[in-house]
Amino acid sequence: MSDQRVIRPTPISGFPEWLPEIRSVEQRWLDHIRAGFERYGFASVETPSVENLDVLLAKGETSQEVYTLHRLQADSGDDSDAKLGLRFDLTVPLARYVAQHFNDLVFPFKRYQIQRVWRGERPQEGRYREFTQCDIDVINVDQVPLHFDAELPRIAHEVLSGLDIPAWTISINNRKVLQGCYEGLGIGEPLAVIRAVDKLHKIGEDGVRDILTSELGLTEEQVKVCLELARIKGADSSIVDDVRRLGVQSDLLTQGLDELAFVLDSLSDLPSGSVVADLSIARGLDYYTGTVYEAGFDDDPGYGSICAGGRYEDLAGQFIRRNLPGVGISIGLTRIFAKLVAEGRVEGGRSCPTDVMVAVPAADRRDEALRTATTLRERGFNTEVFHQASRIGKQIQYASRKGIPFVWFPPFEDGKPHEVKDMATGEQGDADPATWTRPV
Amino acid sequence: MSDQRVIRPTPISGFPEWLPEIRSVEQRWLDHIRAGFERYGFASVETPSVENLDVLLAKGETSQEVYTLHRLQADSGDDSDAKLGLRFDLTVPLARYVAQHFNDLVFPFKRYQIQRVWRGERPQEGRYREFTQCDIDVINVDQVPLHFDAELPRIAHEVLSGLDIPAWTISINNRKVLQGCYEGLGIGEPLAVIRAVDKLHKIGEDGVRDILTSELGLTEEQVKVCLELARIKGADSSIVDDVRRLGVQSDLLTQGLDELAFVLDSLSDLPSGSVVADLSIARGLDYYTGTVYEAGFDDDPGYGSICAGGRYEDLAGQFIRRNLPGVGISIGLTRIFAKLVAEGRVEGGRSCPTDVMVAVPAADRRDEALRTATTLRERGFNTEVFHQASRIGKQIQYASRKGIPFVWFPPFEDGKPHEVKDMATGEQGDADPATWTRPV
Repeated sequence: MSDQRVIRPTPISGFPEWLPEIRSVEQRWLDHIRAGFERYGFASVETPSVENLDVLLAKGETSQEVYTLHRLQADSGDDSDAKLGLRFDLTVPLARYVAQHFNDLVFPFKRYQIQRVWRGERPQEGRYREFTQCDIDVINVDQVPLHFDAELPRIAHEVLSGLDIPAWTISINNRKVLQGCYEGLGIGEPLAVIRAVDKLHKIGEDGVRDILTSELGLTEEQVKVCLELARIKGADSSIVDDVRRLGVQSDLLTQGLDELAFVLDSLSDLPSGSVVADLSIARGLDYYTGTVYEAGFDDDPGYGSICAGGRYEDLAGQFIRRNLPGVGISIGLTRIFAKLVAEGRVEGGRSCPTDVMVAVPAADRRDEALRTATTLRERGFNTEVFHQASRIGKQIQYASRKGIPFVWFPPFEDGKPHEVKDMATGEQGDADPATWTRPV
Repeated sequence: MSDQRVIRPTPISGFPEWLPEIRSVEQRWLDHIRAGFERYGFASVETPSVENLDVLLAKGETSQEVYTLHRLQADSGDDSDAKLGLRFDLTVPLARYVAQHFNDLVFPFKRYQIQRVWRGERPQEGRYREFTQCDIDVINVDQVPLHFDAELPRIAHEVLSGLDIPAWTISINNRKVLQGCYEGLGIGEPLAVIRAVDKLHKIGEDGVRDILTSELGLTEEQVKVCLELARIKGADSSIVDDVRRLGVQSDLLTQGLDELAFVLDSLSDLPSGSVVADLSIARGLDYYTGTVYEAGFDDDPGYGSICAGGRYEDLAGQFIRRNLPGVGISIGLTRIFAKLVAEGRVEGGRSCPTDVMVAVPAADRRDEALRTATTLRERGFNTEVFHQASRIGKQIQYASRKGIPFVWFPPFEDGKPHEVKDMATGEQGDADPATWTRPV
């Protein structure tokens, strides 16, 4: 060993990794998110980490971020792997999955998917090259009822409420309101205006005004109304009146306002301020066509979205000749979790799942310790046996360092009572492995 | 949509994917395996999907199978991603993890890791390019007590016993027995003989005899004893006497037989035949130094191992100047699961986790349906509300197709009773969402 070259392992930037005590918290979060999704009847789907490149690039939007796979020593002429890339989100795989398995799925298809995605971005704060997304989507043939637009932020609200994270707000808007308003103003390229307004939080009103005026050629009056619209915020459907007061007329605008009001009214029982309308929310992606969602931390709005989604009219048109609209929302688990870990705001859990560590009082008592552990395991306690008959102080120290809540002492001789020590209180007393219960 | 080119999605060979009803079974398996590992106090660890190439190639054994990552449109001169490869097992990441976080871990470090690995192999039966492994390992500084060699196959036995799979056997051997016997026979290259004997199940006794004689130059008598040793099998430590009867003497052989007898005696309470000694098991990998494990299906021995592992003297010598021996065992989840799926031996579960579907009797009764669902969810039932006020027959058909066990009917008017239909029995009766319980 000593004459060997040592390759000093270093963290890989953008690929987070946790110690066991942090991982146990992440695992609790993942279990909580999964239970929250299943509580509403969403079914688990996992897809392979890779997709064919033509599937990944069908939308052509994020090609520069895609990681492709190559075999280190590919046979010459064998390019079968050269067409594979790691998924960069969970929406493209969903579209491909639904198209590929169309005849085997029951619609409306309600799935959740909690998996890692990869993007070859330059690492920066809040951006990872490998991160876990938690997506739920409802896909149906031809038409998805509007009440799902309200159900999804409700699920996200319930899930986020159960995590120990700083205050956040889910902002809601409707692309039809934006597009309808711009059309009502006589603007020819409403999508270009949406993309410009989407930059509001990054470049400010002056920056957006500049794009609208110089690049898109809007009139001063058009720009004024666009910015007034983007300033409208509110906790309930009264914001609809604020929009109407702008005096713009269009059928699409009316339809969008009806939808937005329905979603806000449906969520009016949630705690005040947790879900709000924010007419500046646009979501840059072209495929959203109605309701859009975006959530961020209240104390760090510049950090960007921790949860986002919306309604799309055509999920899988590139892959199948069926009209498959849907609505979805995605929780950025790693974006949330890694930020809080970095800021020291995640209180580490236990570094192991052990409930009871059985001490070995002497080498010839190991069998008794093993029998005790078997009894405790059969009764549902996660149990480990200390690995050697060391002095008791050393065994207790191991349990303490691992955060194990109870240490069990089998007797030194048969017939004597067992004892158990509560590591939190220090109390120690007689106990029977066949009947012991955790003190409340 | 109709004028768009359609990219017909096709399965990618070697990358398995499941429909929801199969995925729900896989998820149950994963939960079961995790619970089994935690029952013994092993802590969850996950590592990034990628490692630096010099880490992956430190052992130099499987380089041809490694997938490397490249950005589709890398900036010229930026080769920061060119050094990354997808992990091909969970042992190399564990070694790197333990070395990197050495000062933050409590030893003996007992971790489990359930994650996907990737190998750029040509797909064939039982070989996947992406598959899930379930590993447990115990790592300690300088010395790992032998009783862990017995604990790991016990855990694997418990975990496999809880899965609905065809009969299997865990075979155990000890490399010291093989190496000690070969050394006692005066063979100069015992590792070369181990690698040859490891091929026994593939090429048969004649094939192995040929290698031992022609390539390694063993005498007829040496070959005879090597093959006699490989024929020894047995359910308990009486096989030690069979080995002694070969009349070979070496300290290493004696030590190996003592270890093997200890492991077999420790497991003697398990059902007869579930764990056996098989002196032909060698495990080709050079890093095993003592106990080795290999499990296969009894009815398809040619399929290869579904669970394997062993003891190694030096896990992380390439990454840290500490002596870190360990013992580990790995369950090949995908190897087991995908084979059974392909053979139609996995009975599909439900295609969604919903316990109760609440019907919508009429459009104006949706609020009542939503309130009912909220009550049921708060009481722990996974509940979905049907998406529209269709005729009741259509709503029941949806529940039936998704395998939802109960359909709930809110009343057509306030004050009337709710009813619930048990889809398995067809029985329907009055029920109160605040007090209803699932019939036993």
